Amino acid sequence: ESIIFGVLTVSDTCYQDPAKDKSGPRLRALINESFANAQVTESIVPDEKDLIQQELREWIDLGELRVILTTGGTGFAPRDVTPEATKPLLDKECPQLALVIALESLKKTRFAALSRGLAGIAGNTLILNFPGSEKAVTECFETVKDLLPHALNLIGDEISLVRKTHA
Amino acid sequence: ESIIFGVLTVSDTCYQDPAKDKSGPRLRALINESFANAQVTESIVPDEKDLIQQELREWIDLGELRVILTTGGTGFAPRDVTPEATKPLLDKECPQLALVIALESLKKTRFAALSRGLAGIAGNTLILNFPGSEKAVTECFETVKDLLPHALNLIGDEISLVRKTHA
Amino acid sequence: ESIIFGVLTVSDTCYQDPAKDKSGPRLRALINESFANAQVTESIVPDEKDLIQQELREWIDLGELRVILTTGGTGFAPRDVTPEATKPLLDKECPQLALVIALESLKKTRFAALSRGLAGIAGNTLILNFPGSEKAVTECFETVKDLLPHALNLIGDEISLVRKTHA
Ligand code: NA
Repeated sequence: ESIIFGVLTVSDTCYQDPAKDKSGPRLRALINESFANAQVTESIVPDEKDLIQQELREWIDLGELRVILTTGGTGFAPRDVTPEATKPLLDKECPQLALVIALESLKKTRFAALSRGLAGIAGNTLILNFPGSEKAVTECFETVKDLLPHALNLIGDEISLVRKTHA
Repeated sequence: ESIIFGVLTVSDTCYQDPAKDKSGPRLRALINESFANAQVTESIVPDEKDLIQQELREWIDLGELRVILTTGGTGFAPRDVTPEATKPLLDKECPQLALVIALESLKKTRFAALSRGLAGIAGNTLILNFPGSEKAVTECFETVKDLLPHALNLIGDEISLVRKTHA
Repeated sequence: ESIIFGVLTVSDTCYQDPAKDKSGPRLRALINESFANAQVTESIVPDEKDLIQQELREWIDLGELRVILTTGGTGFAPRDVTPEATKPLLDKECPQLALVIALESLKKTRFAALSRGLAGIAGNTLILNFPGSEKAVTECFETVKDLLPHALNLIGDEISLVRKTHA
């Protein structure tokens, strides 16, 4: 049985022109390369708190997604509101998981201090806010990749996320 | 005069069978080994938000405990709700203290990213959420041990926590 | 055009006797040494949540300050309430920026674990809570100095903070 990931690109630009979305497709590729039984659902929303929240809530209420990775809207610009859209939906915050993502990112650049991404659990869905660049989502995904199978088992999957091993 | 520590084991299993509680007694031993004038009060509650909160609130309102160490219920499982029970009781959060605990834990295992423990102050009581394993509580206690006397002095003890020196 | 910094000293002692305020003037000097087009507004309030909040709110509503650095009131003492005064005013929290400040402080002393300073954005003003000592504000300012120009550009300045280069 497959485990469904949601990838939500949050970006005014990509919402206008989906061809400009590089980080969403990149996350899809990373997920498919890493896990044998993963399936990916994708969506793009503009940097509007209500619209981000609406899409997240639909996915959470659906009850079929085990992980939602958002990309974009985590910075200091006025329209960066992904964490603010995410936080009220969380039943539980996972600050130490956000910490590990931040620590790894800070090894690459001190400007990771200007990301504001959250990690948390809503229902039985793990939600992680990643920044908007292809490079950043790659680094963040690599950081959490080996933690995800155990995390999802704990959250309550009857089925397990199966790692792909690369020869 | 003695300083009273509360040790609250949060675990369905240990609540059913207190003999299975290893981390509570371990914390009691660590406290007694570390401080000359510490006294320990212990309790066990199941992984129920209301019951955890009720026990914490009683201890806080009693006004006699200077520190409460919880063990268990900090993970990603649906019944792990100790941080959610703790947070609404806090007058002040101490995120940098939680950070130091997390950083030390992460040196041992990356899976410390899946702990969600908080640190904070309720009234004049410092509350720290530790994970549920004997190994984890030992590591966490060792991390905060040397910070506790200064922390408690600041929170407002007229009396001081006295370190035991081991020859 | 200049960028206005607010420096808010939070201290009962300094409020009684402004001559005792070392960290406020130190921050003013650091800002002026670091940036060519910075201007500094200073104020001192006692360790009272309402008064801290009132001063912060006035500065935020004024809409002319791009950064507010508070010094003092971040510790574990009962009257240390600067983070509690700050938090309700924030539109956005910046936990990773607070993390970077904490990590640098922890390199100097483990007792940085007992600071509870927040970082966040209110309107278009970045607010950072620094501890109350001259040494601590110097370290914290050095940590964020190189991040400030980019941070302020993102928050929405039409004008940029200009670094002074020292020959
Ligand atoms: Na108490």
